[in-house]
Amino acid sequence: MAVFSSLTPVFVAVLCVIIGFLFKSSQRRETRSKQERSDQTARPWVDEDLQDDTEISSKHNEDDDDWLDTTEEENLPHIPYTPIQYSATEMLERSEKFYSLMNLRRSVRFVSPDPVPKQVIDNVIRTAGTAPSGAHTEPWTFVVVSDADVKHKIREIIEEEEEINYKQRMGDKWVHDLKKLRTNWVKEYLDVAPYLILVFKQTYGILPNSKKKTHYYNEISVSISCGILLAALQNVGLVTVTTTPLNCGPQLRSLLQRPANPATRKIPANEEGE
Amino acid sequence: MAVFSSLTPVFVAVLCVIIGFLFKSSQRRETRSKQERSDQTARPWVDEDLQDDTEISSKHNEDDDDWLDTTEEENLPHIPYTPIQYSATEMLERSEKFYSLMNLRRSVRFVSPDPVPKQVIDNVIRTAGTAPSGAHTEPWTFVVVSDADVKHKIREIIEEEEEINYKQRMGDKWVHDLKKLRTNWVKEYLDVAPYLILVFKQTYGILPNSKKKTHYYNEISVSISCGILLAALQNVGLVTVTTTPLNCGPQLRSLLQRPANPATRKIPANEEGE
Repeated sequence: MAVFSSLTPVFVAVLCVIIGFLFKSSQRRETRSKQERSDQTARPWVDEDLQDDTEISSKHNEDDDDWLDTTEEENLPHIPYTPIQYSATEMLERSEKFYSLMNLRRSVRFVSPDPVPKQVIDNVIRTAGTAPSGAHTEPWTFVVVSDADVKHKIREIIEEEEEINYKQRMGDKWVHDLKKLRTNWVKEYLDVAPYLILVFKQTYGILPNSKKKTHYYNEISVSISCGILLAALQNVGLVTVTTTPLNCGPQLRSLLQRPANPATRKIPANEEGE
Repeated sequence: MAVFSSLTPVFVAVLCVIIGFLFKSSQRRETRSKQERSDQTARPWVDEDLQDDTEISSKHNEDDDDWLDTTEEENLPHIPYTPIQYSATEMLERSEKFYSLMNLRRSVRFVSPDPVPKQVIDNVIRTAGTAPSGAHTEPWTFVVVSDADVKHKIREIIEEEEEINYKQRMGDKWVHDLKKLRTNWVKEYLDVAPYLILVFKQTYGILPNSKKKTHYYNEISVSISCGILLAALQNVGLVTVTTTPLNCGPQLRSLLQRPANPATRKIPANEEGE
């Protein structure tokens, strides 16, 4: 599997999972003064609204001749597989118990700052990494952030873009559809939660020979992985909220030092990716 | 939640999850005679290759003035939320146990025809339905197929399109990248597995007043839901293989009688959607 660990991926922010314990006291959000609605006219929402700048720009940089792959994994030996098998009664019991557990999950925007053991976070990310992916490319990167300054910078980036999303980019239709959820662009939980997990999709990888490696169905694969991540977090009793910070990809990638260029890649001590 | 159950969605095949017990005996695939490689020249894979016909055509039918939503859910009362909370030791134990369980999952293409209790399948689909989704639109439809004739028709549709994918549509690059996985377009497991779960994304919904309802981030939402589905299936000891049958959407939608038009929608007795 050495080929995967040596990949230098292109990062695009897909999802941000905010985790922690439920904050038990009541808490009021301090809304910012500039809350007047944009006077832009409503327009229908289209998929292209969600196209991230990073994704668009990365397509321009592709050199068609550079796509090539290795074949080193072609001749791996066969390893017999013996999964656990349960009786019909056990299956039924397990399916009911797991449903009850998952059905208790809610998206929670008021979280406690109480600390969470880092090893638990490591385990849930390992669990997410067991997800299937297109052609087994595993096109995901999980960045765990606990440092207060970095969390605050992430909040600033996301709130700035989200304010534009609410007031201009997404139109009145989107604002109207979200009204019943009572959300806005102020995301205090990004400061409060003990951990933010930023999930980046790798639209392609770079092989050791500098050739590009295609990541088929990378958005579907990363999202499946996030589903397993959410299940793993719910399983340990942590609350989460999953957000898709539109148009924040380039800035978050820069902040977290996950550039496409391997020569400048650095991983700060307080963050980990795998 | 009545507004959701009355939606008549647009269906696009995203994923097909094939489930069952592991087939323990060895079994050889009977390969078809027409296996000669396409002589088409290789070309780089692009995201557009994965664009489903249904998705493309559905965009042409959109009437911009039709986008409107209800506000009936705006004034729901607050319900206190009290999630389960574990000690640090318990969290660590639970995270390790769940990782061990999920890490045993493999994509399995040789499955046993042994029957699986339908109630277990119902429970895992309910579990998948607990996933978060963009603006809580829950833009997914799970179609469970166990009827032998319907399974075989699905196999015929998928194999026909997959043969084109392998020989023409996807190019030599894709065929080369899949070579190490030793897959081809012959998918006998579609006949053998006791259940196929076809997961359709709803690119938008129709409200009771015939207006369209926007489904934000529908592909990400459906894929997160599939991640939880796979976790639930692994949890009950069933093996799975997840496939993305490119370009099969329109035919599968027609076969399973999930058209966009509510007047002609029928659900055969042997299939269920929720």
